[in-house]
Amino acid sequence: MDRSQIHPQLLADCHYLGSVRACEVLLNRNAVLPWFILVPDTHITDLLDLPEHHRDVVMADCAAISGFIKQVLGYAKVNFGGLGNLVPQMHLHIIGRSEEDPCWPNPVWGNLSVVRHYEQMELLGWQADLQKMMDLVPADL
Amino acid sequence: MDRSQIHPQLLADCHYLGSVRACEVLLNRNAVLPWFILVPDTHITDLLDLPEHHRDVVMADCAAISGFIKQVLGYAKVNFGGLGNLVPQMHLHIIGRSEEDPCWPNPVWGNLSVVRHYEQMELLGWQADLQKMMDLVPADL
Repeated sequence: MDRSQIHPQLLADCHYLGSVRACEVLLNRNAVLPWFILVPDTHITDLLDLPEHHRDVVMADCAAISGFIKQVLGYAKVNFGGLGNLVPQMHLHIIGRSEEDPCWPNPVWGNLSVVRHYEQMELLGWQADLQKMMDLVPADL
Repeated sequence: MDRSQIHPQLLADCHYLGSVRACEVLLNRNAVLPWFILVPDTHITDLLDLPEHHRDVVMADCAAISGFIKQVLGYAKVNFGGLGNLVPQMHLHIIGRSEEDPCWPNPVWGNLSVVRHYEQMELLGWQADLQKMMDLVPADL
């Protein structure tokens, strides 16, 4: 799987950081909170419809991203969701949350109005961390 | 794990249907759409922090509930989420969605105002189905 197979709406909303074992790794362009989106290589649209082994490896990738958010970025809380009501291609949200973020304690979807943009150096640094932690194959930013 | 270990806010919001392999099975009292909440037996608060094997069995329970929503109730789409920003005890949302529901395509959280209540016969029927499909040990309703 590569960039050309990712839904254009996801590419419009996100930076494409690269590939890990079972997923493409995207990062929402809004840097107010760390909002990762993982896109598994599948035509199935709902996470809970994946065959068991495939689901387990996808969840392991999600857990590794959550580990990055907690251990490297220092967030105590991670929200996880698979919705896909608007963009049918399966994509999983892994979002660092804190009581200081602008939409706490609400879910982020539809409630995040404040916007900050990532600096290129920040994205390159996160790519390097993820390369070390979970063998991310980095994409060109 | 039993009823006494479930967070009182979850019991206030939900019917307690019973236990399956790795989770307690709750059902949001709002019957406008089928909104199940699974409570794994753990003190960890975030799904993606569970040890791998525990996470996999919890996800298998979630997938079985999703199967009930799709195959028995006839929904084409299921939303899945683990948030826990308000109630810290880990609880996982498994929600049947359709283009006809009152908050489509938004997430349900904070967007569901229409209310319908379940009939007792409906709850007993779902309990019986889940007993057959996934060995639910039913609770008193």
